Parts: sequence; C-alpha cells; structure tokens
Amino acid sequence: MPLSESELIARFFRNCGAQRRDVVLGVGDDAALTECPPGMQLVATTDTLVAGVHFPLSTPAAAIGHRALAVNLSDLAAMGARPAWALLALTLPEAEDAWLTEFAAGFGTLARAHEVALIGGDTTRGPLTISVQLLGHVPQGRALTRAGGHAGHLLYVSGSPGDAAAGLAIEQGRLAAPPQAAPYLRERFLMPTPRVALGERLREHASACIDVSDGLLGDAGKLAAASGVGLEMFYSALPVSRPLLEALGERSARELALTGGDDYELLFTVEPARTAGLERALPQEQWNYSQIGVLRAAPGVVLTRDGTVMDFSHSGYQHFA
Amino acid sequence: MPLSESELIARFFRNCGAQRRDVVLGVGDDAALTECPPGMQLVATTDTLVAGVHFPLSTPAAAIGHRALAVNLSDLAAMGARPAWALLALTLPEAEDAWLTEFAAGFGTLARAHEVALIGGDTTRGPLTISVQLLGHVPQGRALTRAGGHAGHLLYVSGSPGDAAAGLAIEQGRLAAPPQAAPYLRERFLMPTPRVALGERLREHASACIDVSDGLLGDAGKLAAASGVGLEMFYSALPVSRPLLEALGERSARELALTGGDDYELLFTVEPARTAGLERALPQEQWNYSQIGVLRAAPGVVLTRDGTVMDFSHSGYQHFA
Repeated sequence: MPLSESELIARFFRNCGAQRRDVVLGVGDDAALTECPPGMQLVATTDTLVAGVHFPLSTPAAAIGHRALAVNLSDLAAMGARPAWALLALTLPEAEDAWLTEFAAGFGTLARAHEVALIGGDTTRGPLTISVQLLGHVPQGRALTRAGGHAGHLLYVSGSPGDAAAGLAIEQGRLAAPPQAAPYLRERFLMPTPRVALGERLREHASACIDVSDGLLGDAGKLAAASGVGLEMFYSALPVSRPLLEALGERSARELALTGGDDYELLFTVEPARTAGLERALPQEQWNYSQIGVLRAAPGVVLTRDGTVMDFSHSGYQHFA
Repeated sequence: MPLSESELIARFFRNCGAQRRDVVLGVGDDAALTECPPGMQLVATTDTLVAGVHFPLSTPAAAIGHRALAVNLSDLAAMGARPAWALLALTLPEAEDAWLTEFAAGFGTLARAHEVALIGGDTTRGPLTISVQLLGHVPQGRALTRAGGHAGHLLYVSGSPGDAAAGLAIEQGRLAAPPQAAPYLRERFLMPTPRVALGERLREHASACIDVSDGLLGDAGKLAAASGVGLEMFYSALPVSRPLLEALGERSARELALTGGDDYELLFTVEPARTAGLERALPQEQWNYSQIGVLRAAPGVVLTRDGTVMDFSHSGYQHFA
C-alpha cells in the first residue's frame, strides 16, 4: 500500500538525525522551531544534487543520502561554523521502502556523527533531486570567508584533491583503475568526508577559506578573486594520493587534482606569521593538509613548476558553461 | 554566451530580495551569515515545486517565482512567524535570460513585499525544480502550532478555498469557466497570497493553526489529529467565492472548497471566550475569514449540513497516494 507523505516522513525521517535540546519543534508541523544560542551568528547554506548530473543513476541510496548532507556540511566547514539543523527537500519518482531506508540511513548516520538534527523537509514526486538546507552557528564576527586573504598569505589544501573525480570516472566506467586503487577512489567519490572539525579549528588560524567542490584551481581562483588578489600554485606541491598515481600516472593525476570536482576539501590561507601556530595546533600529519601555493598581489591564477609558469587552461566545472 | 553559475547568481539573484541589516553576509560565499534577534526563536521551513507536478509546464516564470516563495511564506504564516531570510535551490534545464529575469522578478517582488532577503542558494542543471528554504522569527514560546486545539474551540478559515483548484483546472484546460470568473480564479492559482500579516496577528488569538495547501478537509483533519481531537465542519458555512459558484455551481464549488489544493489560506482555532476579542481586533470583513466548524472530543472529521452528517470520502491531495 502506498505511503502518504506524512506516513513517509514519520517512518523514514522523524528520528533520522541527532536529537538536540535546541530543537523546540522538529518534523511534523508547518515549520520547525529552534533556539539560536546567544553570542552566535547563524550560518545557512543549501546545495542540490540531481540524479544523473551530480551522481550516476547507479549510485547506492545510502551514498546519495550521505552525499546530500556532506556537500552542505562542507560549506559550513568552509565558514568555520558548527552545523546544527538540516531541512531535506526530497523529490523522488516513487516511494520505495528499500531505497528510502538506505537513503535515510546514509543521511542519518552522517547527521548523527555531526550532531545535526533533521528538523523539517518536504517530499514530492518528480525526477530524483535532493536539496538540503543546513544551518549552523559561528561565534559573533568569527566566520571564515573567501575574502580575508592578502598577498603573501600561504595557501593550503586538506586531503588529496582529484581522488573523487577519479572515483566518479570509475563509477561511470570511464576509468579502469588497478584493483588496489579502485575501492579507495570510489569511496572518495561515494562517501566524501566533510572537513567540519578542521574548519572549526581553522577559525583560529586561517585568513580565508573555501570548500573545494568544483575543482581546486577554479575554486582557488574564486578565493583569490573574493580577496582581491591573485595566487601562485606550486605544481610539485600538490598532494596526490598513491591510489590516484597508480590509477592515472603522475601527469594525469596532477591534472585531475587541479580540475576534478567533488573533493569537498578545504582550501585556506594563512598569514606567514601564523603558520607556525597552525602547524603546532594542528599537526599536518594528523590533520592531513598541505601548503600548495601563495597569494600574490597581481590578479589571476598561475601554476608554477620549479619557478616556471605552466600553461594550464582548465578552470573547473561550471554547471552552465 | 552561456553564463557561469556565479555570473548567473550575480546577475539575477544578488539583489533580488529585500536588503536587511541583520544579513552579515549574503549571496556569494560558501554560506550566508545572519544575526538572530534576541528573545526570538528561529522558524524554518522548506517547500519544493516540481514542474508538471505542482504547476503546469505552461505556467509563466514570474508566477513560478512568486509561488515558490509564497508556499513557504504560508508555512511561516501558519506558525505566526515573521519571515526574514530565504535560500533558493533552483534546478533548471537551461539558463534562459528571459525566463530567469521573469522568475527573479516574481520571486523578488514578493520577497521585498515581505522584507525577505535572499541570502543564498544553489543553481544546478536538471529538470525544473525549485526548493526554497525560508527562515523567520517568532517571540520565545509564542509560535502557533497544529497541536493547540481543544474540544469546543471554533474553527476558522481565511479567504475562499477552492478558487485555486478551479484556477488550476482552467490552466490545464479541464474547466471552461465563464469569462467574468476565469481571470480571478486563474489569478488565485497563479499568484497565491500568503496570509503572513494575519498569521502574525493570530498569535494573540488562535489556539492552533495550519496552512491549507492540500485541501481544506484533509488539512483540518491534520490539525485535529495533532491536537488530539476531532472536528465538525459546517457544509453551509464554507466560504465560496462568487466566481467559483459561477464556474461550477454550488455543489461542485463546495466540493472543491473542501478538497481542492493550493489554497495557501490559514485554518485556525479559537477558544470560545476569545472569539469576541478576535473579531474586535481583526474585523472579519477586513481580514476575510469565516467560522466553518468546531473541534469535538470524538476523533475524526465529520461534515454536517443542518445538523446531519454528510458522507464525504475525499480527504485531500497526497503526493504518494
């Protein structure tokens, strides 16, 4: 027997996320009610995933649920914010029990890991599309933005960009990776890890931050432009994972690290006088980030190798380009 | 030349809504930053519109933009909340200048009328789907919910339900309305009026409230169930507009008033001792609402005419029924 919208919500989503004391009224009324903590600013973002555009139609439902929340958590991480409450707008062709159970499990596991309550949403019938709205908090005046960089600030990135793009290519049958590399790369695409803990800690150290979702080089250009500067990125300093090297060889691996999307890593800048403090408080081997460049006064993005400018025309994924 | 996502946002949406002093950082970074007013709770909702499901493919872009915000404003109205900030997740097959200009005009006009700032969003390519997340405020502990009704409380509805459903039928070519009635009914479907001012004022008078979006009878049943009671609705007291009567005749008009969707009116309950205060503070002829029933201790919804229970099996629109 088909489920009504309210039965569907009650069954799959009412207890999906974390339980939080600041949620006065969650799923089930016309809107949700929450308490904003004093001294904090509200941070709000939304990101949409469309089947066949943002993930292959074959993607497991649990990975879709995870990813729909992860991409939003990554936005909040880039602001140095702590996530709190999510709303889920789920459009799906039909209400299949097995699919919904898995989707809710993927979403809910990540939500509970980050103490995010699912406070509301909307389910509608239509082509599979998931929009998540995520709300969080940051202490008054302490948010990281893209605009705080200055010439001379050092540029860092977390993780190893390019892995997720290779994982997507494997999922789509466009790339045949060796057996020791493929599972890791697929996992990096299917279950991205939003760098929430790092983002919160970077409030003490970074001058600017952006999440890398559309390609490292393009997103670095956005940070630089918002900060009113340019940047130099060091080709040889790009952190490239061993599985990515094994799957693609060095040249293609570095190209994918520069232009592949779906990384959900943090790209951030640090004033030179503060790099020692950063590395003391957040040891690089533990927090997994690398210095990959420096902000420059001259606008534009240049990629250099041994001090020589490389020609590199790609600049990241554009939905409407 | 095709627009990039950031150009599209800058061009059509950066100055689309109201300017508000409590917006610290709006469209353009990884997330938006706002200031929550002290003493207020945050109210959050999201609603999705899918082309071909929630509106005909022929619907003008300005009406789609208006409607996408209006349905969310209606949810906040039902909580007695004042709207403040919106996020827009827009999935569209292609970025057409004329369509986007009209859509943004429809959205922006309504947003500015309600002092709502558009603080963020996401544009993606895919089947036309619009999810809006709306945030607002309500004084601590003063929100209206569906759950506050008690047996004996009187049931009221704003406006004249059924008009929008007739307008949709006209849009879809399923109903041929007389020329003096059709424009009004189409307008009621295309440009619904969220009852935001009424909702805020009802905080002083109502015990429970819900917005009527899936059909009056079904939504009344939801309010009663959430309040742990039943209700009796008076068939002859249903407010039916003259154009609806002219288009359908009395019997069908009342049936549509009971079951048609897309009304975005408020259905609310008032303690008998407080009805005089309600009618003094909010004169019925000015605020356009009608008493249509009463809550009863026995569960379930009954429709009566001259004291006799009518058989009525419809119960509103269910997306997955």
